[in-house]
Amino acid sequence: MCQPWVVSNTAKRPPICVLGLGLIGGSLLRAAAAAGYPVYGYNRSVEGARAATADGYDAGTDLAVALTRAAEQDALIVVAVPMPALAHILDRVAEIAPDCALTDVTSVKGAVLDAVTDAGLRARFVGGHPMTGTAHSGWQAGSVSLFQGAPWVLAVDDGVDPQVWMTVMRLALDCGAVVVPARSDEHDAAAAAISHLPHLLAEALSQTAAEVPLAFALAAGSFRDGTRVAGTAPELVRAMCEANATDLLTALDRALDLLIRARQGLATHRSVAELVEAGHAARVRYDSFPRPDLVNVTVGEPGWRDGLAAAGRAGAVIRSALPGPDSLG
Amino acid sequence: MCQPWVVSNTAKRPPICVLGLGLIGGSLLRAAAAAGYPVYGYNRSVEGARAATADGYDAGTDLAVALTRAAEQDALIVVAVPMPALAHILDRVAEIAPDCALTDVTSVKGAVLDAVTDAGLRARFVGGHPMTGTAHSGWQAGSVSLFQGAPWVLAVDDGVDPQVWMTVMRLALDCGAVVVPARSDEHDAAAAAISHLPHLLAEALSQTAAEVPLAFALAAGSFRDGTRVAGTAPELVRAMCEANATDLLTALDRALDLLIRARQGLATHRSVAELVEAGHAARVRYDSFPRPDLVNVTVGEPGWRDGLAAAGRAGAVIRSALPGPDSLG
Repeated sequence: MCQPWVVSNTAKRPPICVLGLGLIGGSLLRAAAAAGYPVYGYNRSVEGARAATADGYDAGTDLAVALTRAAEQDALIVVAVPMPALAHILDRVAEIAPDCALTDVTSVKGAVLDAVTDAGLRARFVGGHPMTGTAHSGWQAGSVSLFQGAPWVLAVDDGVDPQVWMTVMRLALDCGAVVVPARSDEHDAAAAAISHLPHLLAEALSQTAAEVPLAFALAAGSFRDGTRVAGTAPELVRAMCEANATDLLTALDRALDLLIRARQGLATHRSVAELVEAGHAARVRYDSFPRPDLVNVTVGEPGWRDGLAAAGRAGAVIRSALPGPDSLG
Repeated sequence: MCQPWVVSNTAKRPPICVLGLGLIGGSLLRAAAAAGYPVYGYNRSVEGARAATADGYDAGTDLAVALTRAAEQDALIVVAVPMPALAHILDRVAEIAPDCALTDVTSVKGAVLDAVTDAGLRARFVGGHPMTGTAHSGWQAGSVSLFQGAPWVLAVDDGVDPQVWMTVMRLALDCGAVVVPARSDEHDAAAAAISHLPHLLAEALSQTAAEVPLAFALAAGSFRDGTRVAGTAPELVRAMCEANATDLLTALDRALDLLIRARQGLATHRSVAELVEAGHAARVRYDSFPRPDLVNVTVGEPGWRDGLAAAGRAGAVIRSALPGPDSLG
């Protein structure tokens, strides 16, 4: 798993200020350091900051100190705190380092964009979401290679600044990820279907099986895979599901509709053919979903955001840095 | 994955006749051969039999020849054909080799027990179900190590013959599995919850995501794990779900009930706390479910079937051969 990677871009690496050193923030601190960025972190709890320091990283528990340093160095600030802490952190950023480039790594993008807008920080903000994670959390669960090969969504919402976008894109690529451009609203609808809905299904499956004698004694691969994400800390699952309630309701209603139809088929004519055949066909399509390289857009050119959103929707990913504003005539 | 294993019992190894050389039957042919059993197979399609022969195994496409040989050698017959082919195969067994010890490897046990009873073969039958599998099927998908460490259910229904039970138990152990004793009806209720329900949830998740733009582009671990079994051939999924319709309806109704309550909580007060907390607690319980060794039952002693069923329900597994009728005074 811990393969070395090719640093995709040798352009200047701005200082990175990571706020929150849990699984994602902690992995980002490690990966950015390994890629040669000057990087330091803030963590609310002493334990997390101390663990990072013990592992040789630059980390502390004073938010004002971290943000003052970011403002002085014109750092890229990465917000990696859970949703409930977001508004408070953004208020402090607005107070101390309002002109820094800003990104986040949160699993919902619409709610974050709203909070950023409320804090008056939208001009220099590019939303981000590395699509990775494990059932574990905290600094100790992190890894320098967490982002290797993972899709990292970067928002191309109206008004996103091309220079900031380039900076965050380079960071994501330098951490080993592939970048998927997407609008925040489309991201959230998709995340509901491929991340939040799977969590609810896994929770329901766990509980259903737990009530049946002999079930755990017989549980094997189908159950283990189907409930893996039910091992995630409940507060993390709740935070992402509840922050994306509207889109999750849409996805959940569709899944319920399919399951209720299957139930009727099973009860009335002992057949689940419709669901099973459509589900299998969908999974086969996923297995052969194309992931072409996205190369033909220059960040900052007219229509670049819409062009990137369309390409991302079609499956294209950015594997090496796109040309940006500096390349434009 | 392919670790060598300790052959658990050096007692006499009867000839094994495997009917059906798909994923499970083909793996069993390989594993039994590796454990020193004289073993041969029958497969309906020429391709499957030819592939097995090409890999150095004894296999053919003439059912009558295979069964005549089984009758002459007093072989243990393992039925490893899909449910739709079962009745025909059992009729041929009843006709040609009615006195052979008989087992199966099918994922539902009540329906198989009914078919075996209908064919007049119940006296020498012990139902079996290795709880393993992959998304692939056919001889090529099989492996000598498929059963390593996997739970292999052996039925302890009323009237099961202790000598036949010992023979099948030794075969399962020699193939590297751990044996879980269970009644067929309890097996089917549990299998509905931990195997058949996960398949329906995976199919519904696949189809729901397939309809959302950008979803496949963002899909990562949660989606892949949650839909892995949707990659299974639809006819196999249908066969096991539809053969276990009654128990599956019970499990599906419970899951639907939980999901509909979660939907209401999300819609009315933006909370999925109840489902997420109960699901997580259940998964944590599963992770620490005890799997003690089952050692204190002698097969054939008074009450042995009920004793094994109770132990299996509590999580106990047989890792080395229990004493049997020969050990009784």
